[in-house]
Amino acid sequence: MAKEKKLVEQITSMDVDFAQWYTDVCKKAELMDYSSVKGCMIFRPYGYAIWENIQKNLDARFKELGHENVYMPMFIPESLLQREKDHVEGFAPECAWVTIGGQNKLAEKLCVRPTSETLFCEHFKNVIHSYRDLPKLYNQWCSVVRWEKTTRPFLRTSEFLWQEGHTMHETAEEARNETLTMLKVYEDFYRDALAIPAITGRKTEKEKFAGAEETYTIEPMMHNGVALQGGTTHYFGDGFAKAFDITFAGRDNTVRYPHQTSWGVSTRMIGAIIMTHGDDNGLILPPAVAPIQLAIIPVAQHKEGVLEKADELRRQLAKKFRVKLDDSDQSTGWKFSQYEMKGVPVRLEIGPKDIENNSCVLVSRVTREKKFVSLDNVIEEVEAMLNQVHNELCERVTKNLEEKTHVALNFEEFVEIAENKPGYIKAMWCGEVECEDKIKDVTGGIKSRCIPFNEEKLSDVCACCGKPAKHMVVWGRQY
Amino acid sequence: MAKEKKLVEQITSMDVDFAQWYTDVCKKAELMDYSSVKGCMIFRPYGYAIWENIQKNLDARFKELGHENVYMPMFIPESLLQREKDHVEGFAPECAWVTIGGQNKLAEKLCVRPTSETLFCEHFKNVIHSYRDLPKLYNQWCSVVRWEKTTRPFLRTSEFLWQEGHTMHETAEEARNETLTMLKVYEDFYRDALAIPAITGRKTEKEKFAGAEETYTIEPMMHNGVALQGGTTHYFGDGFAKAFDITFAGRDNTVRYPHQTSWGVSTRMIGAIIMTHGDDNGLILPPAVAPIQLAIIPVAQHKEGVLEKADELRRQLAKKFRVKLDDSDQSTGWKFSQYEMKGVPVRLEIGPKDIENNSCVLVSRVTREKKFVSLDNVIEEVEAMLNQVHNELCERVTKNLEEKTHVALNFEEFVEIAENKPGYIKAMWCGEVECEDKIKDVTGGIKSRCIPFNEEKLSDVCACCGKPAKHMVVWGRQY
Repeated sequence: MAKEKKLVEQITSMDVDFAQWYTDVCKKAELMDYSSVKGCMIFRPYGYAIWENIQKNLDARFKELGHENVYMPMFIPESLLQREKDHVEGFAPECAWVTIGGQNKLAEKLCVRPTSETLFCEHFKNVIHSYRDLPKLYNQWCSVVRWEKTTRPFLRTSEFLWQEGHTMHETAEEARNETLTMLKVYEDFYRDALAIPAITGRKTEKEKFAGAEETYTIEPMMHNGVALQGGTTHYFGDGFAKAFDITFAGRDNTVRYPHQTSWGVSTRMIGAIIMTHGDDNGLILPPAVAPIQLAIIPVAQHKEGVLEKADELRRQLAKKFRVKLDDSDQSTGWKFSQYEMKGVPVRLEIGPKDIENNSCVLVSRVTREKKFVSLDNVIEEVEAMLNQVHNELCERVTKNLEEKTHVALNFEEFVEIAENKPGYIKAMWCGEVECEDKIKDVTGGIKSRCIPFNEEKLSDVCACCGKPAKHMVVWGRQY
Repeated sequence: MAKEKKLVEQITSMDVDFAQWYTDVCKKAELMDYSSVKGCMIFRPYGYAIWENIQKNLDARFKELGHENVYMPMFIPESLLQREKDHVEGFAPECAWVTIGGQNKLAEKLCVRPTSETLFCEHFKNVIHSYRDLPKLYNQWCSVVRWEKTTRPFLRTSEFLWQEGHTMHETAEEARNETLTMLKVYEDFYRDALAIPAITGRKTEKEKFAGAEETYTIEPMMHNGVALQGGTTHYFGDGFAKAFDITFAGRDNTVRYPHQTSWGVSTRMIGAIIMTHGDDNGLILPPAVAPIQLAIIPVAQHKEGVLEKADELRRQLAKKFRVKLDDSDQSTGWKFSQYEMKGVPVRLEIGPKDIENNSCVLVSRVTREKKFVSLDNVIEEVEAMLNQVHNELCERVTKNLEEKTHVALNFEEFVEIAENKPGYIKAMWCGEVECEDKIKDVTGGIKSRCIPFNEEKLSDVCACCGKPAKHMVVWGRQY
């Protein structure tokens, strides 16, 4: 077991240095590598395979609701980006600009897309003429670029991978419904695929997307109590439509502007998985997106019949699960540690004695509970343990969220909690940006996460200024 | 049937103007749209869905052979691109350069990747240390940029989507095998999925990839006799490994350089599909990648029971095929034309009389042959007609290739064919670049496509200069 220990020692403990623990896991689990390109990272096979599983799962959910995938150019001419005033103000400062093409200085510089609202609008103008052309329910899988000063693998990089939905609707109500429906899709996906139940709600005016009328958000809490903005959906009204002169002939034959939404989640979800579920032994992957759901480790594999039986099991289980049999000449202890580090949800051990008893051992990555199961119903047992892992992860996340959410009724309490207790703060708010600014300044960075859908009435007054309260807000630090 | 005619008239006839016919089909079948970004195009849902089917099919073939997907940054620092001399000479002239990031002039300009050999090499240096780390079999799906002066939808655009495989091997032999194996994968895919049997072979020195030792290619012939370089695989030897100082400890514990390959196909395959199979009624899609394999058109759909039966059929057939039932209020004739235009391989018609007879009508998009089939075995009949469509497409392509391939034994014959007969020219070649240059100059653009694997000995002398011949070359104009 010496080798196992050594491998585990390579990871900094979470409690000692959470940021270093995170970086260690990203590297040691072979999720990513750094590159010589400032702020950009390399998705290694194991990290990219998680993204492929995320894509496949989400893409099916989008298509089920009638969305179609398209692909727009990666460049946006400066004049096109400038068409919607708030939007360009929000994004221009963090754009990367192409100024030379094929050895010539370009007449107009091109921005590498930070998001594609403007490109979609230009296209919508071409393809929307009548109410019969609506709704347009489009989605795009691509990479986008936002020039970041400080970066962190998966969470904040100058280039990242994402999906961006862009839809156009006949009525405001339909568009609003789309915005809420897609937030629900994200919420379901976070809970059912990533095993991360999370708070959802509406962003305040200050925190909403550049150009949007309303922004909705899902705000998963990481293990250390810090928030990650996990996905957002935006209702634009007809603001972009007017800026881009997109009109259609309505049912009454009058000229109308369509109503628009956009919504996106990105590879930062991989960061959320790491930071929410991981422990001092490394990554823990939710079964639905784990590249390997089951690692089969033969015990005493040199003994006659062990590898044959292990391979027979692999073939049997691979019909239903993503399985890896490790028959390499590494020690059994090294293999145990390796697949723990890589966060494989369930390990199956099989050795000579197990074979004699027509059984094997299943080990949960979350609880490390061992279960001896008969080979006769190994498929059912593996499935049950994968479900158990998923449920245990969900329960841990909910417990962490509950334990690290605090109520503040006045500013003194707010600051006291902010200084001493990591996590979210629930507090009433008057609706004024001045209070948001004050809280951010005094606490050194705490922002409103969202006005949750299920608001509670904690008191009648704003916890910051004491004036009458309009909403309950969830506050927190963020990545 | 008036509307059907009208729709068809919107497409220029192939024989009148092939280029215009191509553009018409791209637009009218709603595959793409133009954008305000110079040289870039928009993949509309129907066009992108073809690419998704291509990706899914190819990705499974790659993974079956042990390849893993990764994602590298989209930017390449100038100094990194310059590390391999031939490579930078080949690509630098057509690069797009980012010179401003986040409002600041960059210290070093960044090229938007035209291809990613240099990025992969930088990463390989980090992850390859021992022969145990080999082979590395990586692939990446992404978009790349090459600044093109004249562009054409799918065939040549400044940005395009592709996959690029990058592999590292212990020995030269292994790497060479990979190069040939992946060409075979492309050849099989072109024939079995795209219904395009095509010539494969080796590129001449003049035509090979910048930095490669050997380049292999698949060269499908379009309907009009013009070639499209359909996919290439490259053997690099250890040239990049040396330039990037990538070494590994061999089995004998000496320091060695790994041997490298790369290979790619792109969205120009969609152009190949259009130009190879299409006709004056529009697109014809090979069943394996068609977004809609079967269009169900109810006849007299206002009659009782017709739509119900059509929908029952849809549900039944959707379990096995990609099906669309068009129950819109457009005329039956319009629908027939619409799905012909969109290249749907098989149409199913069902009306009151068919229902009475427990039958329906299947119509092949290729031959327009009608077949009355019993509803009792409609699944088998649809499957049979889809297979028939695939086979008929293959046969037509093979026939076109045979009819438009000519033999030239001397220069006079060569020029005579070049001037009068579209298609490929098979001719012996001395191996000298001077003859390639002369042929290109005199014929106004004919280049060597490849030295095919199954060379024939047409004569003993070069068809251009009359000196002793080394190889038979297939020559042709290209897109």
